[in-house]
Amino acid sequence: MTVQSNTRPSSVTTGAIAGSRKIYTSPEGRPDILVPFREIALEPSAREEPYRAYDCSGIYTDPSVTIDLEAGLPPIRREWIAKRGFARVAPRAVKPEDNGNIGTDKLVPACPADLPVYGGAPGQLVTQYEFARAGIITDEMIYVAHRENMGRASMIAGAEERVADGESFGAEIPAFITPEFVRSEIARGRAIIPANINHPELEPVIIGRNFLVKINANIGNSAVTSGVAEEVEKMVWAIRWGADTVMDLSTGRNIHNIRGWIMRNSPVPIGTVPIYQALEKVDGDPTKLDWEVFKDTLIEQAEQGVDYFTIHAGVRLQYVPLTAKRVTGIVSRGGSIMAKWCLSRHKESFLYERFDEICDIMRKYDVSFSLGDGLRPGSNADANDAAQFGELETLGELTKVAWDKGCQVMIEGPGHVPMHKIKVNMEKQLRECGEAPFYTLGPLTTDIAPGYDHITSAIGAAMIGWFGTAMLCYVTPKEHLGLPDRNDVKVGVITYRIAAHAADLAKGHPAAKLRDDAVSRARFEFRWEDQFNLSLDPDTARSFHDQTLPKEAHKVAHFCSMCGPKFCSMKITQDLRVEAERMAGLEAKSAEFAEAGKEIYLPQEAAE
Amino acid sequence: MTVQSNTRPSSVTTGAIAGSRKIYTSPEGRPDILVPFREIALEPSAREEPYRAYDCSGIYTDPSVTIDLEAGLPPIRREWIAKRGFARVAPRAVKPEDNGNIGTDKLVPACPADLPVYGGAPGQLVTQYEFARAGIITDEMIYVAHRENMGRASMIAGAEERVADGESFGAEIPAFITPEFVRSEIARGRAIIPANINHPELEPVIIGRNFLVKINANIGNSAVTSGVAEEVEKMVWAIRWGADTVMDLSTGRNIHNIRGWIMRNSPVPIGTVPIYQALEKVDGDPTKLDWEVFKDTLIEQAEQGVDYFTIHAGVRLQYVPLTAKRVTGIVSRGGSIMAKWCLSRHKESFLYERFDEICDIMRKYDVSFSLGDGLRPGSNADANDAAQFGELETLGELTKVAWDKGCQVMIEGPGHVPMHKIKVNMEKQLRECGEAPFYTLGPLTTDIAPGYDHITSAIGAAMIGWFGTAMLCYVTPKEHLGLPDRNDVKVGVITYRIAAHAADLAKGHPAAKLRDDAVSRARFEFRWEDQFNLSLDPDTARSFHDQTLPKEAHKVAHFCSMCGPKFCSMKITQDLRVEAERMAGLEAKSAEFAEAGKEIYLPQEAAE
Repeated sequence: MTVQSNTRPSSVTTGAIAGSRKIYTSPEGRPDILVPFREIALEPSAREEPYRAYDCSGIYTDPSVTIDLEAGLPPIRREWIAKRGFARVAPRAVKPEDNGNIGTDKLVPACPADLPVYGGAPGQLVTQYEFARAGIITDEMIYVAHRENMGRASMIAGAEERVADGESFGAEIPAFITPEFVRSEIARGRAIIPANINHPELEPVIIGRNFLVKINANIGNSAVTSGVAEEVEKMVWAIRWGADTVMDLSTGRNIHNIRGWIMRNSPVPIGTVPIYQALEKVDGDPTKLDWEVFKDTLIEQAEQGVDYFTIHAGVRLQYVPLTAKRVTGIVSRGGSIMAKWCLSRHKESFLYERFDEICDIMRKYDVSFSLGDGLRPGSNADANDAAQFGELETLGELTKVAWDKGCQVMIEGPGHVPMHKIKVNMEKQLRECGEAPFYTLGPLTTDIAPGYDHITSAIGAAMIGWFGTAMLCYVTPKEHLGLPDRNDVKVGVITYRIAAHAADLAKGHPAAKLRDDAVSRARFEFRWEDQFNLSLDPDTARSFHDQTLPKEAHKVAHFCSMCGPKFCSMKITQDLRVEAERMAGLEAKSAEFAEAGKEIYLPQEAAE
Repeated sequence: MTVQSNTRPSSVTTGAIAGSRKIYTSPEGRPDILVPFREIALEPSAREEPYRAYDCSGIYTDPSVTIDLEAGLPPIRREWIAKRGFARVAPRAVKPEDNGNIGTDKLVPACPADLPVYGGAPGQLVTQYEFARAGIITDEMIYVAHRENMGRASMIAGAEERVADGESFGAEIPAFITPEFVRSEIARGRAIIPANINHPELEPVIIGRNFLVKINANIGNSAVTSGVAEEVEKMVWAIRWGADTVMDLSTGRNIHNIRGWIMRNSPVPIGTVPIYQALEKVDGDPTKLDWEVFKDTLIEQAEQGVDYFTIHAGVRLQYVPLTAKRVTGIVSRGGSIMAKWCLSRHKESFLYERFDEICDIMRKYDVSFSLGDGLRPGSNADANDAAQFGELETLGELTKVAWDKGCQVMIEGPGHVPMHKIKVNMEKQLRECGEAPFYTLGPLTTDIAPGYDHITSAIGAAMIGWFGTAMLCYVTPKEHLGLPDRNDVKVGVITYRIAAHAADLAKGHPAAKLRDDAVSRARFEFRWEDQFNLSLDPDTARSFHDQTLPKEAHKVAHFCSMCGPKFCSMKITQDLRVEAERMAGLEAKSAEFAEAGKEIYLPQEAAE
């Protein structure tokens, strides 16, 4: 059944996103830092500056750059990391089991872009958290501050009003982001910049409740399907449409080498679930797992540059029986693996027992924790139960341990939760985990629509993002049914960009509404090309318009196929506006009319 | 550009929805009333009764019935209506302008299923509201009570607990629906059964905050595209996937005759916006509209059997200037037509001035009001502004007038609203309009994703449905871009079924969770066919599974392509459960362990 491909990734999707061009701007006084944006030029009739959009697509969307996957991306963080004086460490030797003991004929070659491996020493400042606690603003912090401000050097007009107009549920979103604000949020544990010191190609991104809501896309081959070329392309494709981070959930063979290709070519933080590979190394039998193989896997992946690890250390022995009466038991892979381990040995989880040591390894490379919710509900029936909330309390306890060890931490959350039970998840997470960033999967608000779970979950994702979740893990239409293909990945990413943006708007993020307004003005003024280009997916918007009105002339028409020219309300309103302007003083007349209390229609009661 | 088709609708989509069969059950003591459901049989291993689903697809999904579009559907309400003793009225003669003065060569023939036309007399009980106020339970009320109970004769186990578990924001959802409860809700104006006495083919449906959330799908040709065959098929297709009502928004030619075909073949309430056809009759010039042509159109459509009319009587002259500074002005077609009329004549709206007379006409046939929100916001920027809320206050005033006249009323709502401004819409509507049912379009929670507005709006729809909206008007992926095709209609309907169901779940509807649990059990037990068949769209769920695991054997496999056999968490959990059962007393041991306060992991603070 294994359909592995050992093709090298020779080509990936490149080229600008329709209607936009890549630009780079620098924070004040730091011309060496180049932060990417997508600039969308508008029609001259708009009389508006080009719109500037956040951009996580990397240089793949910069037509002036030639992509060389074997060389990897330019290491833009190299100098920043170099000046921190980390020692080179002798890399762990690659073992046959790292690639699933695959035969040499089927072995994917390692990515030639081999980098030196660095590790922090005890006492040395290594993690962004440690720098922040020490009061030091890193280059990464400067980078993300500029990025979150959409490259603006000062506050945008109306920013404070927009913040005040939102409902942030206690978040403290500033009207303008300074590097010092970034530092203070990281120092408080309220935000993280996942940035392994062995991932110099990274374009840093901040994840926290007081910043733009981020989204993650999962990629990964399973034993059943997919190979290296597809996986690298999936990463490039996912970030093209807006994935802020990518998790590589591969479980098949060649896992080590595929990860190498992904790391060296990824401008976004890469997350993994190391227990998956550890399990591969013990032939898929959870009961054979032990600390040594897990530790070895952590080091292997940390040296490759993985930016965050999901660690299911909250699945404690005592919680396992709490899942016995659930409708859907344990649905997290990592959670079920650890539950099986605990139960079969009747011992406490080694992830929990060895948590200190895990922290030490992750701190050494600045791998951020994504504390996994192994007991998340897999159905609405199991939402918010004792197993889920018990684990969350343990994750809160571990958060504080990790902070003490100098690590960056975020917390994973559900899953399947009906709308009325979402808010308490956020509130409890903030309380238990000291406001560490929450990173949720959906949640799916109903179980009855397999094939549409990007939608069932977008509803929950938008809501929990509004309530305070910092990053939303996407769900594709294939959830529960199969592995997402190229189109599913795109639909999942766009859907989650919608959820994240809806949350930003509702929270009152000072920049969010600018894009809505730009689209709405374009729509009202029949600037069709502008409406397409400003949208999250210009290609789809344009093609949908083309399906009923294909001619070029219709791209400037003052109507669309929905109503046709006679019935277009926007056309009528525009005519109306011209008329209203001619009739100066109409507004005054209306006010006078209202003041006089005239009612042309006489309610029946009064008439009787 | 006109691409009219005068083909007769010769065939429509028929046949059972995959995995289900049509059944009919009767309320106690009323074997003459046959209420349709879809029964989904489960695999024997499930040891569960077949699942019974609400069904609005009409006899089109009953393979035992031969469909004859020329004859129309069986008039199941004929006897119920007959015993009320309405007089036959001489039908208004069809005029050439009713079909847009189209040439006879292009004229769509009238549907041969011509029915006698009835009208209520003054003083006679005509509308469901009037019967309810008089304390009389109609056959329609008995029908919808049975339908809302999913055909159950008594309360389902756990119904009260599920109601108590929900958050209904003041709605009063009973654990079991009696005909008397239906009557009392209608009498209070909190629910309506749109049911024109000239639409005997109708399978009655109730719209109100204390019932299942309903959805509406729009169909209709415009001047640019579509003809009769397509429109009838769109209706059949929309109800197949779950549209509870259908609005025919046609604006092109042949409008009268196409409507006839739709009415005679529709088992669901049909709504229209009469001002559209009235405008056609005056050559598309809003300034030429007057009461006579509008009144004539109301009678024309009421006699055909239309069940509810959108009437934009709240667009008063004084509100028009309030839209001048909006980002997107007036985006409702009806609203812009009336605004233009008011402004060009500098007169109060004739719909507002003649509201009493409109009520008299609508009462005569029991056409329900859907008081249109002509000033709804067309962008997030314009949400909840003075124009929108001013109109809503007027709609509240008109609601009371319509009730006094004996009419059934619901109220239309926005539109485009960011998440944090949704709830106040619901609260204000309930307050201003005396709890009359709210019927909202979305709302779209962001403007930046044309091509995906079914999703931007499903987020808002699920939320406002939870807060109390009784019916959600669907939005398709083509919104803002073009006319929906067959697939768009299906995607729009399924998306809105998701939103409505998520709302029902959150409100604590006693039946909603049953389906989620049935799907979840099937999922956990790897009953793939059951999972597909229980889902909102079995065909899509099955085809997605087939894309990666096409073999028949995989329909019984205890894993899917997402994780493969080794990594399947549900498989591991099932093994785990077996193991846990063997180890009896584990739970007790765990409790004992917890009581002893043992902590295997020693927090660092304590260790120091």
